[in-house]
Amino acid sequence: MKATIVTIGDEILIGQIVDTNSAFIAKTLDKVGVEIHEILSISDSREHILATFKKLQNQVDLVIITGGLGPTKDDVTKKTFCDYFEDVLVVDEKVLAHVTELIEGFYKRPISQINKDQALVPSKCTVLPNTVGTAPGMWMKKENTVFVSLPGVPYEMKYLVENEILPKVIKEYQRPFILHKTVLTYGQGESLVAERIEAWENNLPDFIKLAYLPNPGRVRLRLSARGTDEAFLMKGIEDNVISLTKIIGDIIVGYDDSETLEFVVGQLLAKYKKTIATAESCTGGGLAALLTSIPGSSAYFQGSVVSYAKAAKIDVLHVSEETIRDYSVVSGQVAEEMALGIQKIMHTDYAIGVTGNAGPSKDDTEAEIGAVFIALATPNGVTSEEFNFGQPREKVIDRAINKALEMIQKEILKN
Amino acid sequence: MKATIVTIGDEILIGQIVDTNSAFIAKTLDKVGVEIHEILSISDSREHILATFKKLQNQVDLVIITGGLGPTKDDVTKKTFCDYFEDVLVVDEKVLAHVTELIEGFYKRPISQINKDQALVPSKCTVLPNTVGTAPGMWMKKENTVFVSLPGVPYEMKYLVENEILPKVIKEYQRPFILHKTVLTYGQGESLVAERIEAWENNLPDFIKLAYLPNPGRVRLRLSARGTDEAFLMKGIEDNVISLTKIIGDIIVGYDDSETLEFVVGQLLAKYKKTIATAESCTGGGLAALLTSIPGSSAYFQGSVVSYAKAAKIDVLHVSEETIRDYSVVSGQVAEEMALGIQKIMHTDYAIGVTGNAGPSKDDTEAEIGAVFIALATPNGVTSEEFNFGQPREKVIDRAINKALEMIQKEILKN
Repeated sequence: MKATIVTIGDEILIGQIVDTNSAFIAKTLDKVGVEIHEILSISDSREHILATFKKLQNQVDLVIITGGLGPTKDDVTKKTFCDYFEDVLVVDEKVLAHVTELIEGFYKRPISQINKDQALVPSKCTVLPNTVGTAPGMWMKKENTVFVSLPGVPYEMKYLVENEILPKVIKEYQRPFILHKTVLTYGQGESLVAERIEAWENNLPDFIKLAYLPNPGRVRLRLSARGTDEAFLMKGIEDNVISLTKIIGDIIVGYDDSETLEFVVGQLLAKYKKTIATAESCTGGGLAALLTSIPGSSAYFQGSVVSYAKAAKIDVLHVSEETIRDYSVVSGQVAEEMALGIQKIMHTDYAIGVTGNAGPSKDDTEAEIGAVFIALATPNGVTSEEFNFGQPREKVIDRAINKALEMIQKEILKN
Repeated sequence: MKATIVTIGDEILIGQIVDTNSAFIAKTLDKVGVEIHEILSISDSREHILATFKKLQNQVDLVIITGGLGPTKDDVTKKTFCDYFEDVLVVDEKVLAHVTELIEGFYKRPISQINKDQALVPSKCTVLPNTVGTAPGMWMKKENTVFVSLPGVPYEMKYLVENEILPKVIKEYQRPFILHKTVLTYGQGESLVAERIEAWENNLPDFIKLAYLPNPGRVRLRLSARGTDEAFLMKGIEDNVISLTKIIGDIIVGYDDSETLEFVVGQLLAKYKKTIATAESCTGGGLAALLTSIPGSSAYFQGSVVSYAKAAKIDVLHVSEETIRDYSVVSGQVAEEMALGIQKIMHTDYAIGVTGNAGPSKDDTEAEIGAVFIALATPNGVTSEEFNFGQPREKVIDRAINKALEMIQKEILKN
């Protein structure tokens, strides 16, 4: 079955917000074998919405629409939805009771007309109850296409996709199996990886498709298989991942999507019962934030000191004033003393120290913009490496964080 | 003039990556008066790309395509681009020289055939030189529509949009003025804000469009005006923002897009020459990372301690063991001692202490999932507030960070 995702909102078309809803919907549906044909962002205008609905009618089995269901005047989706189906809006008593309970019971406010209007739905639609917000989802079929309208608030949308749409799709549609396996590599560029695996790639069976997803410093390779025999597809992917690993095992750091580097590092630390702490300057706590984004990270992450100011490096991390004077704050020596300092303070097995100049200006440091020193302290001592991550600021921070994670991972795997 | 943005890549349609390129392109073009008609994500298939090009031909003035220009086999955009224009690929000597310099000169590797192929471009296209990567941009016109193909790597795409596309668009097209002003409010929900400003909204002139952008805990109101008389549009927007401020000035925290709360807080700290530090538990350094994402933040941000482990709270922040025993680690008392501790360590005017349980499990704390205490230390003492930010984990962390920023902002504005 095929689906198209439509996000409605001028804020997307003027670049004010990044559309993250579509990726969530696409990923969730892909897992149960729904092929996403297109993702489309359109304006809040009635004409644009109607023209889009007409174009998608019978082109795909399912159209998932997000946005434009809020209580305010700029939200036109619901009325347009109703027009398209030549239907009228009626009050849904269950939704009204839920909205009333939420506003009067939870928020302790008198309910207003604007709140009450959230309970208006097209008379012929199947209401998808939204227990985490006020605007319900709406499911309506015309000829061969089901149109589903969802609120644009991410956690309300997620709730409805997982609890309402997914069960209905699984129950009501025949779907093939779509399997993916992603191999995460680092340290070599896309062209180099492509050269190394050329013969392997040429030998891939027709039902497996390979995609390269390059990022600064890393390349993900995604194998996708689609078909009706799940066991056959799974074996095909597994066999080819094994043969791929034989060729580029030296640069593979993990498998599968959920296995981001912070997840992989977390798993390793948990497995070996090791702890870690970070002392961060130019990355500003970003490394700590990434490590703690993993549920269960409190088992291995002890803490961090973000020492932006020179005084913080000296007073808290006990970096020596002499070292700073002799080598400057952006130096391997300072990174190493930062790592040793935080390792001692937090009583950890491993520790990272990062100092650098992320730009945009050189400020009070001598260091070039983009220059970053990363030190790794282990139970056996400390080492540091120098990098230049170029520009702009966000790229420098991002690459420094990734590189630090790689250094930790390599170190743990040594043992 | 109208433009449509097309992002090519199966990784978008299966939800493996979030398309952030489109928002950047949309925002950049919107600023110079280009109306973005649609944003479209399609698959890597030749047929899908050709069908999309045909559909967009003469429907818009400009089609900006990203993705599919890499050196590997799954990248089909360039060949399809060439087919659509009935052209042939030829070597561009300047691009070849640049790629050679980059690979042999900068990366110190022998150049391969895959690298050399990056210099192949359709013979009739205008090459947009990519000084920050290997794949060039390509600009080609057919009848009334210009098609531009860009690499998908974000910083390469950004470089080409800013340095090549923008100047060409400004030179070659007549465009109206599009102005936006966004008013950032916090503390009241969308419906409540809508009720308060209803009369004002009804009186808006026809050339101004209002949009509500709700987020957890805050609503942004965007006024947009489009027309040929820039001064007239600007005055219209300014007058209406002034009248809006008279109605809901109590909940307005800032204006304009770039004025995220971390930016607003940073500006205030810089203006009053005040400094800040953070002590973070459940937010894991996220507050520090956000504060330091602002260029120039080293003027006011001194540092942070992320004290995930109890020992770190005691040893580094000097939270007393008694307080933890009597009130538990997730308590207002501990948040306050964390704030006072980091204020002292980092010698700052203000300090934030955050402790809470972001979930998903209760772990070793007594606190409910979602419970967060935020303390603010000032030169005059310390106070704390209790919140329940619900679930899931990322929402709790996100809301705690936003709330902390609001508390800082409110405090500074008091003085």
